[in-house]
Amino acid sequence: MTVWLNGNLVAGPAARIDPADRGFTLGDGLFETIRAEAGQAVGLDRHLARLRQGAALLGIPVAWADQAIGSAIERLLAELGLGSAAVRVTLTRGPAPRGVLPPAAPEPTLLITAGPLPGPAAPAHAVLATGTRRNEFSPLTRVKSLNFLDNVLARREAAERGADEALLLNTRGDLTEATIGNLFIEAGGQLVTPPVTDGVLPGVMRARLLEVCGAVERTIAPPDLFAADAALISNALGLRAIASVDRRPIGSAPDGSLQLVAACQAALAGR
Amino acid sequence: MTVWLNGNLVAGPAARIDPADRGFTLGDGLFETIRAEAGQAVGLDRHLARLRQGAALLGIPVAWADQAIGSAIERLLAELGLGSAAVRVTLTRGPAPRGVLPPAAPEPTLLITAGPLPGPAAPAHAVLATGTRRNEFSPLTRVKSLNFLDNVLARREAAERGADEALLLNTRGDLTEATIGNLFIEAGGQLVTPPVTDGVLPGVMRARLLEVCGAVERTIAPPDLFAADAALISNALGLRAIASVDRRPIGSAPDGSLQLVAACQAALAGR
Repeated sequence: MTVWLNGNLVAGPAARIDPADRGFTLGDGLFETIRAEAGQAVGLDRHLARLRQGAALLGIPVAWADQAIGSAIERLLAELGLGSAAVRVTLTRGPAPRGVLPPAAPEPTLLITAGPLPGPAAPAHAVLATGTRRNEFSPLTRVKSLNFLDNVLARREAAERGADEALLLNTRGDLTEATIGNLFIEAGGQLVTPPVTDGVLPGVMRARLLEVCGAVERTIAPPDLFAADAALISNALGLRAIASVDRRPIGSAPDGSLQLVAACQAALAGR
Repeated sequence: MTVWLNGNLVAGPAARIDPADRGFTLGDGLFETIRAEAGQAVGLDRHLARLRQGAALLGIPVAWADQAIGSAIERLLAELGLGSAAVRVTLTRGPAPRGVLPPAAPEPTLLITAGPLPGPAAPAHAVLATGTRRNEFSPLTRVKSLNFLDNVLARREAAERGADEALLLNTRGDLTEATIGNLFIEAGGQLVTPPVTDGVLPGVMRARLLEVCGAVERTIAPPDLFAADAALISNALGLRAIASVDRRPIGSAPDGSLQLVAACQAALAGR
């Protein structure tokens, strides 16, 4: 599998991450998952703006211009023969000696990988994760860092409980997001998503739904979710309806969540 | 630099982490930092027991027996010509396709690295981290995972504030630990450390201090810390006195923290 690594298309053993890379040793880095169509990244400016915000929080210098990253994605997709794709851009602080304090002059690692776009997923049967919670007291919940283990734990719990997605609460017990995207509910004719301060990643698709579909930010407690008319999960690759949570159907109308997804997709397509 | 990777001593480009390794892409793994003396790991059984507990939480199979890991450490230290050393054992879930859900049949990565033991550090001038907090609601605070970014953020904050270590609070505002080890205070003639349920890693040296030095577990609020007679940070590599926190000296007696460290070291040496 060919990848783009620090300026070069490489494959096989040449695609090498140094064992001392702080992305590997400490999860010291960030990533973006980006949808590509016709060999080009969709919404690249927003993704890279978020990546740079995360890099500013962590103090990781980003030596690559947006345009250089865009060209790298195009080169990689052409090499792989992919038009539509799921692209991942990973930025780490790079190799460093042992220690928690970052080196004064880091040499960051930038890795771009791509694979086929997953097909549309059936409505999700989700659980409320009981094994862990998101930490709204940490700014890390508001950047897309490599510290993804709480989501991995929650996703494993979903599988153990016979579900295919998990929704995470914050330490106060309010809803935050799914393991792979933001959460929206439909309530009182309005689309609602938790505010970023509740411990939520400001997703790129989430921002579009706020702008285009009239969605609003409001804290969502579990009773709000179970009383909702519909619910969906959004990420850069698309929207997914939520059919049930903890085996309780969401909404009284059959296919309500599917209709919500269709309405949002239509609104997005209209822009 | 030679490392031990999945069964072999390797150096240079042969020491390659796959860009698809989940340790790199999602921080999906664990590590141990172990002191070595005379070419042998100290307290290896306790370190590997903790590593296995973490692996059980994450569902990462550990195919290597303790003895095999011990032999690997000895081989690596011999190759590097190190007697005393800081050894790091890193276990990840290994390479996998895109996705949060772990693969059904993971092929974990086991990496062992080693370097010279750092010399004794001067008493720490610490800060209470204000930028982030540890999440006692997540079981990840109780295993040594690769999700180390909250500590990195706190350590960077310490540097920005002219200090050389940070102490992290949990979401309730109680003390948890330092970025590189556990926290102990001396209060009323007793050594006290926060319980693991406050969001604390059960450190190997912490366990020894509880067993050997008569330390007890009790929640430590910031006023308790500032009123303490002395304070120290413990990790597998040693003990470090805390001279001040937020520029306020700890303890009324000069060198109180140094005396506490000396007393604990004497107690440990007596065992």
